[in-house]
Amino acid sequence: MNGAPLQSSAALNRRWVLARRPLGELAEGDLLFRQDPRPVPSDGEALIRNVYLSIDPTHRIWMSDVDQYMKPVRIGDVMRGLTLGVVEQSRTEGLNEGDSVSGLGDWQDYYVARPKAVTRIEPRQNLPLTAYLGPLGSPGATAYFGLFDIGRPRPAETVVVSAAAGAVGTAVGQMAKLIGCRVIGIAGSEAKCRWIVEDLRFDAAVNYRTGDLLDALHRVCPRGIDVYFDNVGGEMLDAALALVNLHARIVVCGLISTYNRLEESSGPRMFRNVLMKRARIEGFIVSDYWSRFPEDFAAIGHWLETGQLKFRIDVRAGLETAPEALKLLFSGANTGKLIVQISEEAAPRAGRDPRCDAARA
Amino acid sequence: MNGAPLQSSAALNRRWVLARRPLGELAEGDLLFRQDPRPVPSDGEALIRNVYLSIDPTHRIWMSDVDQYMKPVRIGDVMRGLTLGVVEQSRTEGLNEGDSVSGLGDWQDYYVARPKAVTRIEPRQNLPLTAYLGPLGSPGATAYFGLFDIGRPRPAETVVVSAAAGAVGTAVGQMAKLIGCRVIGIAGSEAKCRWIVEDLRFDAAVNYRTGDLLDALHRVCPRGIDVYFDNVGGEMLDAALALVNLHARIVVCGLISTYNRLEESSGPRMFRNVLMKRARIEGFIVSDYWSRFPEDFAAIGHWLETGQLKFRIDVRAGLETAPEALKLLFSGANTGKLIVQISEEAAPRAGRDPRCDAARA
Repeated sequence: MNGAPLQSSAALNRRWVLARRPLGELAEGDLLFRQDPRPVPSDGEALIRNVYLSIDPTHRIWMSDVDQYMKPVRIGDVMRGLTLGVVEQSRTEGLNEGDSVSGLGDWQDYYVARPKAVTRIEPRQNLPLTAYLGPLGSPGATAYFGLFDIGRPRPAETVVVSAAAGAVGTAVGQMAKLIGCRVIGIAGSEAKCRWIVEDLRFDAAVNYRTGDLLDALHRVCPRGIDVYFDNVGGEMLDAALALVNLHARIVVCGLISTYNRLEESSGPRMFRNVLMKRARIEGFIVSDYWSRFPEDFAAIGHWLETGQLKFRIDVRAGLETAPEALKLLFSGANTGKLIVQISEEAAPRAGRDPRCDAARA
Repeated sequence: MNGAPLQSSAALNRRWVLARRPLGELAEGDLLFRQDPRPVPSDGEALIRNVYLSIDPTHRIWMSDVDQYMKPVRIGDVMRGLTLGVVEQSRTEGLNEGDSVSGLGDWQDYYVARPKAVTRIEPRQNLPLTAYLGPLGSPGATAYFGLFDIGRPRPAETVVVSAAAGAVGTAVGQMAKLIGCRVIGIAGSEAKCRWIVEDLRFDAAVNYRTGDLLDALHRVCPRGIDVYFDNVGGEMLDAALALVNLHARIVVCGLISTYNRLEESSGPRMFRNVLMKRARIEGFIVSDYWSRFPEDFAAIGHWLETGQLKFRIDVRAGLETAPEALKLLFSGANTGKLIVQISEEAAPRAGRDPRCDAARA
């Protein structure tokens, strides 16, 4: 991938700013690529250079102004986003130059933060740093708490997950396999379906782009669905809800199929089964589980070390590509955790700007 | 109310039979009023004369053939229904002549049952027998387990209940008041609203037939909704879901607004709040709690004795009126528990058929 030429000098801070709220799909002009002065840390703060930007479906929610789980991004503000970065300059005791940190660093090159606002990362041998935006970050925790705390699957139950080849879906499916469930993934291509069955050991996969989804799902769930972990909403939720067993649990983790038209979205067509099957539909947001992240990291760290949990990171090069990257989530063109690389992991060498190399990756 | 003249001799059994599945609202000809021979108990069975027939929204579900929580009533079968009856003739040890029993006695004069299929009732002083189809029957248990097991309200939380002047709604609201909640009822007339506020001590009521429901509900729930106990679905669920607080619980007890078009009903418009507010939507059917009914009866019996729980029974006279009675539930013309009286409570005196008096009541 050819990166765009670097637009800014080292003293500047490139950033994507929300210029207006998208109507439907994200369009050119909704976000503006600006250059602002690089921020300067005050006492008690550090300057952090963003290396990786996590690209998440929820970004589209934040661009909308419907009532939501956080405040929407304001027009004129830099776009909100989770990043992995490196401390470039520290004026606080809690952070040292060269430290790797994750935090809400936003869609930009640099930000300043107090130690409490970020999480220090201890890079592990054998694991790429990007794992901290994947299985060892929010997507892993989302899968872990959503599946075990909300879905509560029991061995031999049938678990279905949508967006199964995504960052959360891959983790959900593998975790459900670990405790002995029968696991079905819904994904958007034959390649994704093959991957989750052959490499990740899902029991079956359904390509939602070919044929009738309800029929296909019915065929691979002959004993019905006990837990449906939903990242998508819309027709997938309709189909899953039509097949739920008594006392089924529907984990509402995401509703990406509705995010481009949140204002008008409606509930599942088969809602009556909530009553008929005494089903439970429960939404959750991973940030509510913040205090329990150590529990998640311990479990997932173990599964990663023993090879029981596999993951893929899909890295796109250059901050300038972030809006196009976000659109990939909605067309399903990514596989695994989608990340934009903003700068090099290594500290900048004299005379070079680490942002150049990312664009050339 | 003038009853229709008695159509059958004492040796016959009048019954409403499902002739065809209703399309939309129950219409003339969907149910046929037939006279069959009175059943004769075999060894181990008793003959039970139905006195009261409980008229419930779920009857309309049973007439439909969508996948549901029990088997639909088959075309040609007598319409299913819960009754209170008196043992007229016993050929089993567990039941004696004159015993009062509740059971699935159906829309008819007589049925035969084994002792295990019915529940013996010990009539209480100061309480009408009909209370066993109301607060001391399924509606009471529905309110009790739905509110406390599924809704799990805490003191000072805001609880909203729809169909608030109905058999379940009145009990839900009063129970929520007993534990210190702020309680709002949604009902369909000014008289019902006045009754639940002035007599049953709800904090406020909203008449869904006047003005904008969401606006009205918002005005009386300035701090949002923590528990929404839904008997109705449709627009009421939409409005409540728009006002839910973080970690709200929506108890799906009934969806009466959808029962006339179950095949095409859809989910709540504000479904996104399941995610944004991390809400839980959970359906339940009271029969799942059968083994725990003693717990419910003890609590409700106590509240009835101490006057903390009030109720109304709306008795309509004559088995022949049952289809029209059922339609009252859908137009909201009843208040409290709706019951059809089939025969007299007292044992028949010589030369008289107890069914005559019911029709004249």
